[in-house]
Amino acid sequence: MIKNITLKELADQLGISVSTVSRALTDSYEINIETKKRVQELAKKLNYQPNPFASFLRKHKSRTIALVIPEISNNFFSLVIKGVETICQELDYYVLIYESHESFAKEARILNHLIGGRVDGVLISVSSETKSSDHLKELLERKINLVMFDRVMDDLDVVKVSSNDYISSFDATEHLINRGCKRILFLKAGEQLSTMQKRLSGYRDALLKNKIDFDDDLIKTFHPYKELELEDLTKVIKETKPDAIFCTVEHLAIACYDVCQKLNINIPKDIKVITFSNLKVARHLNPSLSTISQPAFEIGKLIAKTLINEIEGKETDALKEIELDCTLIKRDSTR
Amino acid sequence: MIKNITLKELADQLGISVSTVSRALTDSYEINIETKKRVQELAKKLNYQPNPFASFLRKHKSRTIALVIPEISNNFFSLVIKGVETICQELDYYVLIYESHESFAKEARILNHLIGGRVDGVLISVSSETKSSDHLKELLERKINLVMFDRVMDDLDVVKVSSNDYISSFDATEHLINRGCKRILFLKAGEQLSTMQKRLSGYRDALLKNKIDFDDDLIKTFHPYKELELEDLTKVIKETKPDAIFCTVEHLAIACYDVCQKLNINIPKDIKVITFSNLKVARHLNPSLSTISQPAFEIGKLIAKTLINEIEGKETDALKEIELDCTLIKRDSTR
Repeated sequence: MIKNITLKELADQLGISVSTVSRALTDSYEINIETKKRVQELAKKLNYQPNPFASFLRKHKSRTIALVIPEISNNFFSLVIKGVETICQELDYYVLIYESHESFAKEARILNHLIGGRVDGVLISVSSETKSSDHLKELLERKINLVMFDRVMDDLDVVKVSSNDYISSFDATEHLINRGCKRILFLKAGEQLSTMQKRLSGYRDALLKNKIDFDDDLIKTFHPYKELELEDLTKVIKETKPDAIFCTVEHLAIACYDVCQKLNINIPKDIKVITFSNLKVARHLNPSLSTISQPAFEIGKLIAKTLINEIEGKETDALKEIELDCTLIKRDSTR
Repeated sequence: MIKNITLKELADQLGISVSTVSRALTDSYEINIETKKRVQELAKKLNYQPNPFASFLRKHKSRTIALVIPEISNNFFSLVIKGVETICQELDYYVLIYESHESFAKEARILNHLIGGRVDGVLISVSSETKSSDHLKELLERKINLVMFDRVMDDLDVVKVSSNDYISSFDATEHLINRGCKRILFLKAGEQLSTMQKRLSGYRDALLKNKIDFDDDLIKTFHPYKELELEDLTKVIKETKPDAIFCTVEHLAIACYDVCQKLNINIPKDIKVITFSNLKVARHLNPSLSTISQPAFEIGKLIAKTLINEIEGKETDALKEIELDCTLIKRDSTR
């Protein structure tokens, strides 16, 4: 077993003090260049590894941030992760990724764990069960920086980055109306999520503008933390007889493809389908799937930059609430 | 700012010693139930947070493991993550997820960081650039447990879990031969990966058994750390004129769909396509995509269990090399 080289051993071999070695390694201005070079070369030769925990206790900074998301196996969130990692690598931060799996209990447990001082800051998109922000407030009280994205909470005074859910939803609904649809089934995933509220408003206002009555029976919720039962969706489609389906999340659109196939309903002839989605193969589906694509990678980069600026106490001109534009991609499913 | 409650403060309020408080909180058998209850109730009431770093320094155990993978945005790896997290949650371990982005330099940097003592063990699937296992040997020399999966290295004496790449590849090739294919283009992602070698052997032996000459010109490599150029793939397909394409990774199959669409080549009439993939929407592609699906979730659970057993010094009867079966799902792309 290779023993970890300590600061003391480096100091002994060089005949200088431990504190000189320590300051040389952190590139302190108090140490002359010649000494720094000697220390750094020996440290490299002996493969000196700073103890990350000792360094934490000394500086109270871990250069680590947490990213808390509902689930990794979702193209939106995996692209957000890519964006966050791109920035963290540039700025020499580590990212710890945590999944709440759409459970409020798990999310609260993760945050309780983070309060213990493991990270300098937290990026979060809340679970669909999350109704209260008390667990997040506690983080702020302990001076751990927080930036929210996509699924945000109104009552917190932190930077929030999301996509332009209202406008995108308005435009997508109007696209369906322009294609002759009047009975547009709107499928929500979760009740209180900020994203769902804004998407529903966009849908409602597009109907209003085009003088189509809003019908409460056409708004249905499927809870993402429950396994989606295809029978439930089949029942909804049979009962509501829509001419279009607007899905707020990707997996609902895939389920619609399953059900329509089983019921011999032709997409887009009988029912048109559009969804929020970052699915790469959307263009190869049968039929190709019309999507509202969120700028997931850009959101990831922006939230990481903002959080690290806050951690490092840098002045920023970041707005408190930032909305990035989505892209509406019209394909065969709404032809 | 809320001050963290210390063990000392708990002890003072209860009029008992710090070590009694500490042992009561870790549920030591040396402390009677009455006292444990009093301590735990006060700790809960005052929201006592154990300092994870102090606890690390004391026990030299962080109850944290690292999962190092080439990329998160790949259905195989995101399902592995789910399996790992399922077990870690059950057994009260934390998972830190690191992406090498198919770069050996990044992978080596991650491991160098982990050597510093941040985790008790490491799960890894190496990058496609990784040729030497020296960076992994150093981990072992420092007594950090290691379990490899999917993309493993032959020269390391650790538990390795993969899927049955040879047999799956043999069966998939024979499926194509049974559908009348004779010129099967085999697309590799990376040169030295263990998975690619085994998949190529299965392909070669299936040809041999069916008396079809092995043609070196039909074996092509696309490097996953370079952006795939559709022109390159177009050129390969035009030059080799295959009647089938066997893709070793999912994104190559999607690229084949792109190229065939552009060249007006009909799948499956002109060219049949099969791929290793855990893509959920494979059944909805146009045409639906035949896949060899790896037991990704099961692999995740198995590697996490094995690693934690090793960390905790538990006897296991785990074999050194474990291969789990894949599922061949025949769909329209090979009809």
